[in-house]
Amino acid sequence: MMRLLQTGATLLVGAGFGASVSRLLGVRGRKEEEEEPGTPLGLLSKVPVLPVPRVQASELTVSPGGSGAVMKYGFPSLANIKTRESYVSSYDSRTRTASWVIERLTPASLNGPSDRKYCNFKEDESIHIFHRATNADFKGSGFDRGHMAAAANHKWSQKAMEDTFYLSNVAPQNPHMNQNAWNNLEKLCRSLTRHYLNVYVCTGPLYLPSQQADGKLYVKYQVLGRNHVAVPTHFFKVLILEKADGKGVELRSYVLPNEPIEEKIPLERFLVPIETIERASGLHFVPNIMKRTSSLQAITAR
Amino acid sequence: MMRLLQTGATLLVGAGFGASVSRLLGVRGRKEEEEEPGTPLGLLSKVPVLPVPRVQASELTVSPGGSGAVMKYGFPSLANIKTRESYVSSYDSRTRTASWVIERLTPASLNGPSDRKYCNFKEDESIHIFHRATNADFKGSGFDRGHMAAAANHKWSQKAMEDTFYLSNVAPQNPHMNQNAWNNLEKLCRSLTRHYLNVYVCTGPLYLPSQQADGKLYVKYQVLGRNHVAVPTHFFKVLILEKADGKGVELRSYVLPNEPIEEKIPLERFLVPIETIERASGLHFVPNIMKRTSSLQAITAR
Repeated sequence: MMRLLQTGATLLVGAGFGASVSRLLGVRGRKEEEEEPGTPLGLLSKVPVLPVPRVQASELTVSPGGSGAVMKYGFPSLANIKTRESYVSSYDSRTRTASWVIERLTPASLNGPSDRKYCNFKEDESIHIFHRATNADFKGSGFDRGHMAAAANHKWSQKAMEDTFYLSNVAPQNPHMNQNAWNNLEKLCRSLTRHYLNVYVCTGPLYLPSQQADGKLYVKYQVLGRNHVAVPTHFFKVLILEKADGKGVELRSYVLPNEPIEEKIPLERFLVPIETIERASGLHFVPNIMKRTSSLQAITAR
Repeated sequence: MMRLLQTGATLLVGAGFGASVSRLLGVRGRKEEEEEPGTPLGLLSKVPVLPVPRVQASELTVSPGGSGAVMKYGFPSLANIKTRESYVSSYDSRTRTASWVIERLTPASLNGPSDRKYCNFKEDESIHIFHRATNADFKGSGFDRGHMAAAANHKWSQKAMEDTFYLSNVAPQNPHMNQNAWNNLEKLCRSLTRHYLNVYVCTGPLYLPSQQADGKLYVKYQVLGRNHVAVPTHFFKVLILEKADGKGVELRSYVLPNEPIEEKIPLERFLVPIETIERASGLHFVPNIMKRTSSLQAITAR
């Protein structure tokens, strides 16, 4: 079940599998973080190519506190941002799934009168019809409509729960994985609200390469239905766990393959260094988090 | 050599191959174009999740005229926009190539003292090191570093030509294809400057699915080097051809497979309906163009 994650240059693969390691990412010399040292001054910079959003993802922050400050630890990327009752997401119009979905869990958000039986998966009409997944795309595919922001995380409001049923918050998941290991990981996220001030969860798809018979690396994934909804090879969950005020932040990042996973395998075995996810997804987490805390402890195994 | 392009619902595949068809897209009932009819008013909309760029790609326009108005016909998408001397591009940090690159060709831009022998392919240091292609990724791969904005389109300025050598303006191309059919298509673009007021060219990669032995559709592509630079399955070029003032716009959209292409096959055989590219790429062209002209003639074959 376990696969090697091959995601690039200084890959720290498998550091989490079995070993007991925790590192302070804050002292890990990420000098290469500086982005966009400035656009060359040329012809185009003199003309009114405006208003192109030149803002960097890592520059975006929100006021701390307040029940909606779901984006406190920054935006992993900036394409097609959608703000919903229960989450903020970035949509990938080529794969027809989210690139990431961020939600904030607290004991209060987990409880309430909301009922899943009144929720139905629905097209996201804010997305152009060319780039939108439909329920028909999933029908008969053999894949579940897997939530990125989980429905059970948002019992506090019927509307918040319903918003998790937009197909833009969904990706094709292997049914066994969705209903077992993935469900267990969602439960773990909820249980952590008992031990941390706030639990921020960022969830998304990955398309990881694997080596084929010719010795070369290929990314291969199925697409579903008339709209070619991509079936991710893996999924990630990045947990930003906020300790009591001033005590810093703990980071746990998981990657699960989109295939049946033996229930015996403990979830800790799927912990990976955050860099693995940052490289493979094209997203950023650590530079953004470091703007909010000087104490970031990354849990890569236990 | 020719492959079916399978890109979704109302696919007009192959309409261009052999038949002689030109359509007025302006009267083609694209009522479904309305994007983002409004975000649900919820908790998150009341809190300072700011400044998220909520602007739609199609809302961005530039003043007409002026030698740098390369974006006159709009932005196909808004992620990671880069403005360079010779082009504007959008970078896909997951695949390590551009999503699209737009340039404007005129007889003046094609001529000048610039010399390719002073140009070297170089890393784009404006991109985070986790998501950046390097020359080492291509070395020994068997793939050419294929220009999106072509070097020979920008002889007007040595700097403009050099800017086309950023690896963010490059994607892995089959050498035979790059040096023959693709080169011919680039020459065609330049020759069109003799017949049109302006020639806008948008170039980018595609990752098209194909049916495998199990009857299902899969996207499969190689990745190169330590940074896993994606090898697109196909490339597109969208040509927006501006006729004399007030005479409207002609649109030609090509898709070429990233494999050896017999030289005998005329380039017209690779014309496809623009919708094919819009669906497969997750980009938009027509809604943006229609804000600038009421007369858009799409050439899908001749």
